[in-house]
Amino acid sequence: MSDERSYPTGIGTSTTDRIQLLGLDLADEVLGKVSFGELAYWLATKRRPTPGQLRVFEAALVSLADHGYTPTAIAARMTYYSAPESIQGAIASGLLGGGSRFLGVTEDTGQFLAASIAALGDTSGYSEDDWDAVARDVLEKAKSEGRKVPGLGHPVHKQGDPRTPVMFQIAREAEVFGPHLSLFEAIGRVHPEVLGRTLPLNGAGVAGASLADAGLPLGLLRGFALLARTAGLIGHLAEEQQHPVGPAIYAEVDRNATYVPPAP
Amino acid sequence: MSDERSYPTGIGTSTTDRIQLLGLDLADEVLGKVSFGELAYWLATKRRPTPGQLRVFEAALVSLADHGYTPTAIAARMTYYSAPESIQGAIASGLLGGGSRFLGVTEDTGQFLAASIAALGDTSGYSEDDWDAVARDVLEKAKSEGRKVPGLGHPVHKQGDPRTPVMFQIAREAEVFGPHLSLFEAIGRVHPEVLGRTLPLNGAGVAGASLADAGLPLGLLRGFALLARTAGLIGHLAEEQQHPVGPAIYAEVDRNATYVPPAP
Amino acid sequence: MSDERSYPTGIGTSTTDRIQLLGLDLADEVLGKVSFGELAYWLATKRRPTPGQLRVFEAALVSLADHGYTPTAIAARMTYYSAPESIQGAIASGLLGGGSRFLGVTEDTGQFLAASIAALGDTSGYSEDDWDAVARDVLEKAKSEGRKVPGLGHPVHKQGDPRTPVMFQIAREAEVFGPHLSLFEAIGRVHPEVLGRTLPLNGAGVAGASLADAGLPLGLLRGFALLARTAGLIGHLAEEQQHPVGPAIYAEVDRNATYVPPAP
Amino acid sequence: MSDERSYPTGIGTSTTDRIQLLGLDLADEVLGKVSFGELAYWLATKRRPTPGQLRVFEAALVSLADHGYTPTAIAARMTYYSAPESIQGAIASGLLGGGSRFLGVTEDTGQFLAASIAALGDTSGYSEDDWDAVARDVLEKAKSEGRKVPGLGHPVHKQGDPRTPVMFQIAREAEVFGPHLSLFEAIGRVHPEVLGRTLPLNGAGVAGASLADAGLPLGLLRGFALLARTAGLIGHLAEEQQHPVGPAIYAEVDRNATYVPPAP
Repeated sequence: MSDERSYPTGIGTSTTDRIQLLGLDLADEVLGKVSFGELAYWLATKRRPTPGQLRVFEAALVSLADHGYTPTAIAARMTYYSAPESIQGAIASGLLGGGSRFLGVTEDTGQFLAASIAALGDTSGYSEDDWDAVARDVLEKAKSEGRKVPGLGHPVHKQGDPRTPVMFQIAREAEVFGPHLSLFEAIGRVHPEVLGRTLPLNGAGVAGASLADAGLPLGLLRGFALLARTAGLIGHLAEEQQHPVGPAIYAEVDRNATYVPPAP
Repeated sequence: MSDERSYPTGIGTSTTDRIQLLGLDLADEVLGKVSFGELAYWLATKRRPTPGQLRVFEAALVSLADHGYTPTAIAARMTYYSAPESIQGAIASGLLGGGSRFLGVTEDTGQFLAASIAALGDTSGYSEDDWDAVARDVLEKAKSEGRKVPGLGHPVHKQGDPRTPVMFQIAREAEVFGPHLSLFEAIGRVHPEVLGRTLPLNGAGVAGASLADAGLPLGLLRGFALLARTAGLIGHLAEEQQHPVGPAIYAEVDRNATYVPPAP
Repeated sequence: MSDERSYPTGIGTSTTDRIQLLGLDLADEVLGKVSFGELAYWLATKRRPTPGQLRVFEAALVSLADHGYTPTAIAARMTYYSAPESIQGAIASGLLGGGSRFLGVTEDTGQFLAASIAALGDTSGYSEDDWDAVARDVLEKAKSEGRKVPGLGHPVHKQGDPRTPVMFQIAREAEVFGPHLSLFEAIGRVHPEVLGRTLPLNGAGVAGASLADAGLPLGLLRGFALLARTAGLIGHLAEEQQHPVGPAIYAEVDRNATYVPPAP
Repeated sequence: MSDERSYPTGIGTSTTDRIQLLGLDLADEVLGKVSFGELAYWLATKRRPTPGQLRVFEAALVSLADHGYTPTAIAARMTYYSAPESIQGAIASGLLGGGSRFLGVTEDTGQFLAASIAALGDTSGYSEDDWDAVARDVLEKAKSEGRKVPGLGHPVHKQGDPRTPVMFQIAREAEVFGPHLSLFEAIGRVHPEVLGRTLPLNGAGVAGASLADAGLPLGLLRGFALLARTAGLIGHLAEEQQHPVGPAIYAEVDRNATYVPPAP
């Protein structure tokens, strides 16, 4: 444990007449000149994104933001119903569901791909066939260990997740299609021959691969899913303020609850 | 309490081969075409922002994101130190500090200005002098009730918050300078004569006025401060993953703790 | 803001061979000798409770712990379903609903009663008639201001909350029936004549009055409701681990969701 | 995913004139008759504890509640400083630190011991020598796999955690000293010969072993640490309401922050 009273940070600092953010003057050099998405990237990496990296980062955030009811949205709506005076509590309650079962796939996929790539050395000259060979190895290994490959499979989009090809294309156009997306795409091509069935590459997985190739830190990929979801949760709370469904969900559960008392 | 099993939402829905978001096809019409900031606005309001509204919205988010250590950043770093496996817990812990004392100013200011404007009717033809008159009334009323005017004063930027004039200018250029910003600016002009001292219009307050004029719902202004802060918290956690200060903060408190046992 | 590096606490401290808690030796004087309920009282007040205060405190906690589905329990179950690896996230998610609409009544009632009593001076010799007179004043004042009296009314127990008379009796037997409970009981007697209808004194309200008379700090009454609810939430999560209902709640909402896209 | 609108629970239910809790009438059979600690055990297990189990359970909770500053206490105090209107947010913020690094040891130890015991069959006739043999196997295995044995070691109590012998004695007196505590105690005896150095059996570990032998579900041991800590956090917030240290902690960090801007 450190004995130093030293709290370094590169995020920012303030003096009486100036606010610095990431080495720039917030008022003169950042406000109105840097988009929120760009700032989020910059804060996480301490590097300004290239236009291509920013395009892929924003697309990944958009793909993860929301598209209907999820357990996290229900939790946030329930909490808002109970404690409407605390918007921060409702949002936090929703974000706390950003764990292994749902939002975690983004990070799991990124980490899985990164670990598979780490042993390869320079992959800049890899052909599609080279990536297919890597994918076969990776899939065989996962299969022999009885482990699931993250990013593969979806409960609804069984024939293909509509986000996946679009994300591939955006990354290609933006010229940030790197080893993570290459390996993920190859897994999509060769997994039927290894696993004996065809599964979709899901949207959370492609978001993870995209964020990794766009240069975001692997240990925070879940964080970006949470940032994206915060925007979605605000959308749910906006609805809850205008046409609440929280009371109807609670009433449904309360009305159909079955009381099964424990044996005495 | 509702008896209906009806859970309407306008956010989105999925079928086997399609994801809809806000009435659009996520894959074909949104991904790569809508920025994350624009999507956040749209989710909250169900309206696509004008370019001017989006510009002001993004600037407000950027101004609120972060600029150094705050109690919320310290809470998030402490939680990360204790439970590094749960990024969602660290972010939620930080957001829970988004309450009355710090981030709440954004919403308080927006609500205060909106309540003051509500009685005025059509203000589209107001001159600066008209707004000054309104501001004098509002300030006199707050003073006589012993209430503070939200958005006025700052512990560090005592001579003026550097964000404020820039936010005014961005809103003017974007042509979304409406009644909330007009009244806020007038409060800045006339409060010395009413209150007998000169205070800065602070950045959280101008963000609240800007968000209100940009058409965001008043009851969620705090939510946007939280969205902005989520990006800042990710920045703090990125630092914590690389050069942690959480252990040093804890060590400082632990080392200098004074035990004052209660009387028996 | 303090400039001192001084962090006093009366809770406890540790040295190599000793842990002190509240001025006692944890191992020798506390473990096995102080119940958890007693310790919770002691930590909050820095005073050891009398047996009577402890009895009322434990009864209040028991009355508030849980008795079926609530929005907070649903939020915790949803969060557990999403992120089963983080029990702390599920509990926190549930506690975040401990706000104004449900658990807040406990504190609101205690604070309301305390504020009403504050002006009275010494009430130790008050008769039931004296308290009825105070209650009439309090109710008239609330009525004239259009304010609700906290602790009065219940959506299910319209003819009387079964907890209320038992809590009164426990406090009488324990000899901690003080001014808060006296006034609350009097409100129960006289409110029909003032308000023109008969409402039950609810269990959250009587818990608040009991905690106040048992000497707990008014500013933390909501905290005790949260402590009690933590035990309830653990019960819900234990069920979720064995016979989950989270998936069924989510499936119900997902299946019956109606998508109402916003106008373009 | 379930298709049934069926939400069974054994916790409780309410009708107009009655509240049922765990198969009992809350008002007539529980209030004033069951302590809060006993109710917490009952809610988690659906079984009423024996007096011995209850004694050990309460002692474990007391040992885990608090004894000074921890990162979780600091997080809660920071959040209270930022959002004093939301006690639930401050408590939730503190609980979110109940993860792998600190409170998780309780559950990790219980799970580790249970997994080690699972293969043994009936251990009711085991002598101390038998347990020592098991402990040697368990330690050898952990050593060969390079894994740490949870519950072993403490940063402050290097010569022995004062809670540990007391918890052993309480469990012996209460006659709930079962296989988990037996194996944990044996690990304390034999680990020096296997690991080549002497480490203390820590208090979080002995709490986990005690809770397991007292019949609490292994998957919720962390939950009981969180329940205990909720009482501690209320103690910290009570101090924060009377003599806040949050501002001093924040001031210390802010004053000694070093701004290290990223390279442009």
